[in-house]
Amino acid sequence: MMLAARYVGDRGIEVATVEAAPPGPGEVQVAVAYTGICGTDLHIRHGDMDARVDLPAVVGHEMSGRVVACGPDVHDWHPGDAVTVMPLRWCGSCSACTSGHQHICERLDFMGIDSPGSMQQLWTVPSDVLVHLPPALELAHGALVEPTAVAVHDVRRADLRPGERVVVVGGGPVGILIASVAAADGADVVVLEVNGYRRSVAEGLGLATLDPTDGDVGDRLRGWSQGGPVGASFEVSGTQPGMEVALACLGPRGRMVQVGIHAQPRTVDLHQVFWRELSILGARVYERSDFERAVALLAAGHVAADALISRVQPLESAAAAFDELAAGGEVMKILVRCGDVS
Amino acid sequence: MMLAARYVGDRGIEVATVEAAPPGPGEVQVAVAYTGICGTDLHIRHGDMDARVDLPAVVGHEMSGRVVACGPDVHDWHPGDAVTVMPLRWCGSCSACTSGHQHICERLDFMGIDSPGSMQQLWTVPSDVLVHLPPALELAHGALVEPTAVAVHDVRRADLRPGERVVVVGGGPVGILIASVAAADGADVVVLEVNGYRRSVAEGLGLATLDPTDGDVGDRLRGWSQGGPVGASFEVSGTQPGMEVALACLGPRGRMVQVGIHAQPRTVDLHQVFWRELSILGARVYERSDFERAVALLAAGHVAADALISRVQPLESAAAAFDELAAGGEVMKILVRCGDVS
Repeated sequence: MMLAARYVGDRGIEVATVEAAPPGPGEVQVAVAYTGICGTDLHIRHGDMDARVDLPAVVGHEMSGRVVACGPDVHDWHPGDAVTVMPLRWCGSCSACTSGHQHICERLDFMGIDSPGSMQQLWTVPSDVLVHLPPALELAHGALVEPTAVAVHDVRRADLRPGERVVVVGGGPVGILIASVAAADGADVVVLEVNGYRRSVAEGLGLATLDPTDGDVGDRLRGWSQGGPVGASFEVSGTQPGMEVALACLGPRGRMVQVGIHAQPRTVDLHQVFWRELSILGARVYERSDFERAVALLAAGHVAADALISRVQPLESAAAAFDELAAGGEVMKILVRCGDVS
Repeated sequence: MMLAARYVGDRGIEVATVEAAPPGPGEVQVAVAYTGICGTDLHIRHGDMDARVDLPAVVGHEMSGRVVACGPDVHDWHPGDAVTVMPLRWCGSCSACTSGHQHICERLDFMGIDSPGSMQQLWTVPSDVLVHLPPALELAHGALVEPTAVAVHDVRRADLRPGERVVVVGGGPVGILIASVAAADGADVVVLEVNGYRRSVAEGLGLATLDPTDGDVGDRLRGWSQGGPVGASFEVSGTQPGMEVALACLGPRGRMVQVGIHAQPRTVDLHQVFWRELSILGARVYERSDFERAVALLAAGHVAADALISRVQPLESAAAAFDELAAGGEVMKILVRCGDVS
């Protein structure tokens, strides 16, 4: 028996004692060390995704842990291996899969949303979703591999040239990770964020910031860039004004990577896209190469994990951890410590 | 003295006898054979671009002709050379120019809009805008090099994979040229067009067509593709419904090239862009390599120029030619014969 944090509907997160699933053929059982809470988890808890999740739903997809048991036919993994999981399972036969884009499979199983996630003590997963974590990487930092892989994928989509100016609209965890990855790639980055605490975190990492509500944001961006062109922007705010700034700031042939969730249709000035030959590039998840680069960036200290981890809560307090993140304020990422794994 | 067709304001096109400009240093005087009328010329004549043009304005930028005189310092061109013009002049110092995107220079001089165009008997231009036409290419067909270069640029922007399915939304001259270039590149193409005459022209060129107002266009496109993915779409209609179809039809990682002019902001479902990792790619003009490929495609017969040239009118009847094109109906491209050049 073990503990698992489950969304049970009606905004409830309950920690229950449940049976652990033994690893079947091709599967591995992982003792989960940490699971981060992300915006999607908050959406699940708030009921926004009730049509998609099966109750009770074990949430969580940003994690680290160690292999404890391997099923039959698993030869590449061994008890004690430090791992994270790339939480995607694809069908292999849809048009995305057959054109090399398995990560956006039309029948994608996003583990932690469409199937049980990692906010439990023992998580049994197919061995092919495991990703090695090196000894140099603390397990708490390993729980940031998944959101860092999002950022690596987003930055790769922008196809940055060396030294290009980059505007990141939104300074939450994903925005700051995008800014960190772009800076590691040599870009000249500014983060636009309304929340002063988040700006202070970004500034603590050496990133330039602007409050987009303070004066004319276009003028202030031109001041920052000294009139030079912005090569790429990342729309992480999910808002109409954020999208407008992300598009308007771009120079000729600039690329706007669309990362934030826009549940409503947006009003877009396509004439700008035409006139400056801009690109709007959707980015949803990641591929394995993004995961591997995320591990390397975290292990090398190019992503300042400690600055992003605001708090760590025990699994028993998972509901309180959700409340704290939803309340906002001086918080970036909250990790749930799922087991005594070192 | 020579004749020139000039927009004089208030919807007037007048053919006047004017002084020909002798070629100065670095310039070439071209005897214009044909000038095509394009949608932009109609916009100028209708007064939509009065803020941009200087009156009286010699319009026209789709042309062919022969060199008649070379100014001092011009050694690469000789009287009798068959030529067309890539009608762009750039500043060389703005952020577009210094990043290798001169064709979308922030101070672009689009000849025929921002400076005198080719709808006159003798046109004096800088020698570096000339493009050679081979003897195998009829001069009437040479007047289609410019719109074909638009299509080549648009198709290049889509980065087509061999055998990909392509949807072209809008079957006017540019739409049919895009379809022809994509088909020459091996794509499986369908043209969506409401006008029956334009569909018949496309069908005469061996292109599949659909009337987007006949039934559910999404269902009919899925029937056409047999459920397979569409790799790229070209939005050439400039309309909200056209843009919606062009985006909705795309498969995973599909690219929508935005060619049509959208003067008003559009409502765009960015969630689709995110979910399928789509790209929206603006395309405005062309580069020299696009012009050179356009010449080669026309000379090789991969673009059926005769099917697109509905009528040829003498320069004296330029106003009537504008009226005929504006009236629509059974017309694609109208050429104005500017001189007795063979």
